[in-house]
Amino acid sequence: MNEAESRLFALAKEHLKDSYSPYSHFQVAAALMTESGKTYTGVNIENSSFGLTNCAERTAMFNWINDGGLPDPIEQLLIIGNTDRPISPCGACRQVMSEFMAPESEVILTDTKGEFVRYTVDELIPYHFTEKDIEDGANK
Amino acid sequence: MNEAESRLFALAKEHLKDSYSPYSHFQVAAALMTESGKTYTGVNIENSSFGLTNCAERTAMFNWINDGGLPDPIEQLLIIGNTDRPISPCGACRQVMSEFMAPESEVILTDTKGEFVRYTVDELIPYHFTEKDIEDGANK
Amino acid sequence: MNEAESRLFALAKEHLKDSYSPYSHFQVAAALMTESGKTYTGVNIENSSFGLTNCAERTAMFNWINDGGLPDPIEQLLIIGNTDRPISPCGACRQVMSEFMAPESEVILTDTKGEFVRYTVDELIPYHFTEKDIEDGANK
Amino acid sequence: MNEAESRLFALAKEHLKDSYSPYSHFQVAAALMTESGKTYTGVNIENSSFGLTNCAERTAMFNWINDGGLPDPIEQLLIIGNTDRPISPCGACRQVMSEFMAPESEVILTDTKGEFVRYTVDELIPYHFTEKDIEDGANK
Repeated sequence: MNEAESRLFALAKEHLKDSYSPYSHFQVAAALMTESGKTYTGVNIENSSFGLTNCAERTAMFNWINDGGLPDPIEQLLIIGNTDRPISPCGACRQVMSEFMAPESEVILTDTKGEFVRYTVDELIPYHFTEKDIEDGANK
Repeated sequence: MNEAESRLFALAKEHLKDSYSPYSHFQVAAALMTESGKTYTGVNIENSSFGLTNCAERTAMFNWINDGGLPDPIEQLLIIGNTDRPISPCGACRQVMSEFMAPESEVILTDTKGEFVRYTVDELIPYHFTEKDIEDGANK
Repeated sequence: MNEAESRLFALAKEHLKDSYSPYSHFQVAAALMTESGKTYTGVNIENSSFGLTNCAERTAMFNWINDGGLPDPIEQLLIIGNTDRPISPCGACRQVMSEFMAPESEVILTDTKGEFVRYTVDELIPYHFTEKDIEDGANK
Repeated sequence: MNEAESRLFALAKEHLKDSYSPYSHFQVAAALMTESGKTYTGVNIENSSFGLTNCAERTAMFNWINDGGLPDPIEQLLIIGNTDRPISPCGACRQVMSEFMAPESEVILTDTKGEFVRYTVDELIPYHFTEKDIEDGANK
């Protein structure tokens, strides 16, 4: 990992303790950095009705939007889980990445052992659905 | 509104500008106060795939959890929308309230004209699903 | 239970076996009847990413819409779970009920022991969010 | 398109009329075929609270599970939208595909003009999250 990635890794690893995961006992955390160098973190937040669960990556991105971050784009997003391989983001989170991150921006998947792998958003969700698709469909 | 409610109303109203709602053009914001007097805010965050949209109330509650807020319970949650009557929280948000807020805790529904109505969480989602239900069902 | 309710109860109880719940081991089923007397069933369908889970009640209502059922309204909806009290519908399902069922229509909550309790949609999700709210908000 | 694909295309195109999409005015439909040759269809089903929206692909897969279809695997899934290019499935639907379809199974993306493109599930959601990941994480 380079210096920025190492900083996000430390932030996310430390943040695992704030995960709310009484149903899966599976802690996940995320940290992102914007172009201006600001950082935001996230944890998974479960619910007794499983469908209302929010993942760590989405918590971090929602945090960034909620802070008025939209004009300061996300440059990279790191995710950490206590898994046997670098954790995989779920499809719902890939969809939210595709809404808010440039196709070529970096997503770093890691585990608590420090293993990691890099993807771009476009590699994680190729041929993704866009605002333009919905406009095309609605105008016909 | 009492003083605490007025403070949450001002916070939430000011925060409407951070709503990400390019699909509905419908801005919603929320603000909550914990027992120790800390405040957290939220906005609605939409997605080109509508099902990945997150509401303002959930953004605020996720923000509080993400900040390690669990030991400092939510005392009241205020929601504001640019509606003709005080805004109604959707069922998904009521479910997340029932996970994290006491049944008797206060939810204040408001609109940009300053009209408001008070509910308890239990009034908004009576006879709610709990962790105990899931344990009962799974152990049989 | 009256005759229609007993028929829905039998349908839903028999349907529990089709639940896909490898993560919670918590089986839920639902059955609904339309004004013309047609019936539709549903089960909970979980996902390794908990947030993509779909509940039984929603599966049944989606089934009805998907079959072109909209012109033939839902008269009553029954839910069954292997719980210690009649099962409670989650907030997300209450929201979908409020979209597709009249406020006074009946929801029967049951468990595998045959205990049951009746609610109206309006009792389960009072002061609910509507299409009108979203139009009001977007037009300002 | 081959014969099976053409049959799914006709089924899905005819089914667009059952879409419930009063908020986006964007109709989507899906059709799938199992190994034994059975077919199931789906439409998008929106909600005034956008986050409760269900996509066409998920409706079709939930339909198949709900019918006890699990022992008869999905061989191919076709999606159609009134778009300017073959429609893209959202990330949430890709996640549900990864739960229920083999990595090499076929997803055919089409539009109402009859344009189409073929993907495998693994191409749509590479390095996907699995039940094994969640077990690894929870057991530590």
